[in-house]
Amino acid sequence: MSVTSATAFAPASVGNVGIGFDILGHTFPALGDRVRARRSAAAGVRITAIGGVVRDLPLEAAQNTAGMAVQALLEAVQPGFGVELEIEKGIPLGSGLGGSAASAVAGVVAANALLPEPRPALELLRYAMRGEAVASGAVHVDNIAPSLFGGLVLTVGIDNPRIKQIPVPPMIRCVLVHPRMFLGTREARGILNRSVDLADVVWQTANLAGFLAGCYTSDLAMIRDAFEDVMIEPQRARLIPGFAEVKRAAMDRGALGCSISGAGPSVFAWCEEAQASAIAAAMAQAFAGEGLESDQWVAAIEAVGARVEETS
Amino acid sequence: MSVTSATAFAPASVGNVGIGFDILGHTFPALGDRVRARRSAAAGVRITAIGGVVRDLPLEAAQNTAGMAVQALLEAVQPGFGVELEIEKGIPLGSGLGGSAASAVAGVVAANALLPEPRPALELLRYAMRGEAVASGAVHVDNIAPSLFGGLVLTVGIDNPRIKQIPVPPMIRCVLVHPRMFLGTREARGILNRSVDLADVVWQTANLAGFLAGCYTSDLAMIRDAFEDVMIEPQRARLIPGFAEVKRAAMDRGALGCSISGAGPSVFAWCEEAQASAIAAAMAQAFAGEGLESDQWVAAIEAVGARVEETS
Repeated sequence: MSVTSATAFAPASVGNVGIGFDILGHTFPALGDRVRARRSAAAGVRITAIGGVVRDLPLEAAQNTAGMAVQALLEAVQPGFGVELEIEKGIPLGSGLGGSAASAVAGVVAANALLPEPRPALELLRYAMRGEAVASGAVHVDNIAPSLFGGLVLTVGIDNPRIKQIPVPPMIRCVLVHPRMFLGTREARGILNRSVDLADVVWQTANLAGFLAGCYTSDLAMIRDAFEDVMIEPQRARLIPGFAEVKRAAMDRGALGCSISGAGPSVFAWCEEAQASAIAAAMAQAFAGEGLESDQWVAAIEAVGARVEETS
Repeated sequence: MSVTSATAFAPASVGNVGIGFDILGHTFPALGDRVRARRSAAAGVRITAIGGVVRDLPLEAAQNTAGMAVQALLEAVQPGFGVELEIEKGIPLGSGLGGSAASAVAGVVAANALLPEPRPALELLRYAMRGEAVASGAVHVDNIAPSLFGGLVLTVGIDNPRIKQIPVPPMIRCVLVHPRMFLGTREARGILNRSVDLADVVWQTANLAGFLAGCYTSDLAMIRDAFEDVMIEPQRARLIPGFAEVKRAAMDRGALGCSISGAGPSVFAWCEEAQASAIAAAMAQAFAGEGLESDQWVAAIEAVGARVEETS
């Protein structure tokens, strides 16, 4: 019996993870987007509803990250039917939490469940990338890949991406604080210098390598020492009021590292479970000192990605 | 009974390993330097002989990598005696095989064995760095750290270096081909651009991360995909006649990767054991096509570093 309707959930994600600009990301399962896909007789993709925490997104498929991603899937597989999408946003817009990626991923995972022969995840990655490009103006996968596969995910290559799930020591928690302001990915990408001092590259690569080695060997001291983005964070920090104070608040209370989630303005910290709630409160207080209200969440970084929740 | 004489061996090393400029290196145990240290009544360091494959090195301690490294050790611990050194070079000068680092490491390891309370390896690393700086004009540890600790070694930080030995899949062999020409580390560092395009940084970091993830998970396909230095190799290749042909010869015969060892001119390739001798021969033939004679070696990358061979 063929599936006529499927609902998929895709988690939010922390892009870059500080030291892995455009190549690393990890899921943040406390938040996510949900997309319901339904077969329709009319060809192509139609978005019938957008609800949840964001409502003013384009309904035209080619302008919508989920719509564009599903359109790319349908163009590739030519299933002989169209798809209607209902999008329920759980991730705030312009928050740096991978909302456009999550919608694109939830869209293709839901639509994929309608196919007589569903496509493998690595292929879905490419369709989701097409959707993400609509929102960010650049092809990058550091939110798409974790949202789809789950956990801390490294992506090597763009044209023929190869995925690696990196183990995260199980005692680690991610604290995420979202100040209630909007910061566009395009703007945050636009301010970046197009070249990097070689000495900073050496420092950044040492930190990236140390961070990964620390994850593979559960070496928290190494993770802490290496958890410093010397390349991107110094440029973007000024876009986030109070960033220095928020980071200091986290580090003073024992965080292993603290940086900007994706393009910001959300700020994340890695810590051990016992410190998590005190760190979240201190970070929120630091934002409050700048007159910014914020939302805070704490989550483990489990290797669980997007999934179909319901079919009929 | 106190030790009055000690001989130490320190292996050669492949600095950078292509994708890890200034932060990664691995031992190449088929070659190495040997230093004999003897207590002397006169304070300070005196070099009494230099032999082996290189002879025209400075005898003045402060100008000699081993001499300077041992001097740094003695200044720190003030043992109440001086040290005489005999250096036996097994690593050709200006070969890109970490010869200056190996002499510095063998020197401090031998001298350390003379101390009533020998110092730990991480402390010896700093003294050896002082020696290396004499030769290369810059403080970097991508040869020192592997020569001292053994295996594939990541170094994070310079002032307070932290070391991580990365596992190498046991079927991997390193082919090393040394064309008989001299290339100074200072010259090879001098030609490098001081800044890097951000897009190249993203590519390079993805490859570095993929390479490390491949090593930790014995994923040879990932190591092969990621084993490409897009940052330094394109700049230094022109210093090595026939580099492109040598690399192609290795890759065509199934190498996982091939790049410049340290600052060159030696070229190394990683491969599986079965391909090693054919790859070595093809690389040597490619150098011969440029009129360059070469020496070739094949070795496993075992996690064995410098060691005291003899004491009396």
